[in-house]
Amino acid sequence: MVQLQISVYIAVSLDGFIARENGSLDWLSVVQGTGSEDYGYRAFMDTIDTVVIGRNTYDTVLGFGEWPFKGKRVIVLTSRPLAPKHGETTHSGELQPLLQALGKLSARRIYLDGGTSVRRGLAEGLVDDLILSWIPILLGRGRPLFGGDIPESGWRLSTAKSFPSGVVQASYRRSPE
Amino acid sequence: MVQLQISVYIAVSLDGFIARENGSLDWLSVVQGTGSEDYGYRAFMDTIDTVVIGRNTYDTVLGFGEWPFKGKRVIVLTSRPLAPKHGETTHSGELQPLLQALGKLSARRIYLDGGTSVRRGLAEGLVDDLILSWIPILLGRGRPLFGGDIPESGWRLSTAKSFPSGVVQASYRRSPE
Repeated sequence: MVQLQISVYIAVSLDGFIARENGSLDWLSVVQGTGSEDYGYRAFMDTIDTVVIGRNTYDTVLGFGEWPFKGKRVIVLTSRPLAPKHGETTHSGELQPLLQALGKLSARRIYLDGGTSVRRGLAEGLVDDLILSWIPILLGRGRPLFGGDIPESGWRLSTAKSFPSGVVQASYRRSPE
Repeated sequence: MVQLQISVYIAVSLDGFIARENGSLDWLSVVQGTGSEDYGYRAFMDTIDTVVIGRNTYDTVLGFGEWPFKGKRVIVLTSRPLAPKHGETTHSGELQPLLQALGKLSARRIYLDGGTSVRRGLAEGLVDDLILSWIPILLGRGRPLFGGDIPESGWRLSTAKSFPSGVVQASYRRSPE
């Protein structure tokens, strides 16, 4: 079978939230200065050919104005209708069948984005790389990154770095069983 | 008023747990090698004169055999009876009155230990320093560090480092309002 590499790159508060309860990402502004620091996002995206993204995150991204996934194959995880604006397709249900289909379409490096999608990927044991960027804030409440039916798993630290803004970013690779 | 400094030094899984659901800390063994690396614990403890510790964590610590708080004033947060073995005293209810009393007893640097205690300290806005050591494991389930009634708060990164075991440790200082 084709070897796919599935990566998660996500910002999280110190207490594990990826958005406020209403979905707002305004709190990320504490680490967004002049825009010259992108926390390795562009370099990461350059390695990616396919984006698998949850519906909520997709809708949020559409609101950004500029489409950040130009030149990438994009699959939105949703069971609701969607009017593709940039050639997106949709998928619902488990990730494994989607990945098998993507492998046949010569996908190799997949970016799994959005809380529900990440949890599903972890629940199915499909995530190879986990890049966490901890934002120096306690939100207290919000939408959690983890939780649900994620099984225990071990990870190996690849790199760790910190930024003047106070972001701590660590990259982990799934440990072999 | 006397200036107390209240610090939290705690290990947490990548998904924010400090113990399994049954209280077990066995998963910390993935980063405990020959025992030569203590992740700065001794150096941190050398700065501490007083330990304020939750009852569950205290009971766990008693089970370790050796008492790790020799020479420190220790206050156990509990409303249940306790037979002091090392001169411990107890306190129940809010932390603020305890801290005022401790200030009069010339306490200066306080180590706040245990999930419930840390959450209470954060809820009361009393924590000055937060030292988090992320263990490279997803537990999936367990006793969470955060949650409950913690208000939003901003933090400044002081130091960040990683260890060969994969531990990422970051020290934060509470941002002024």
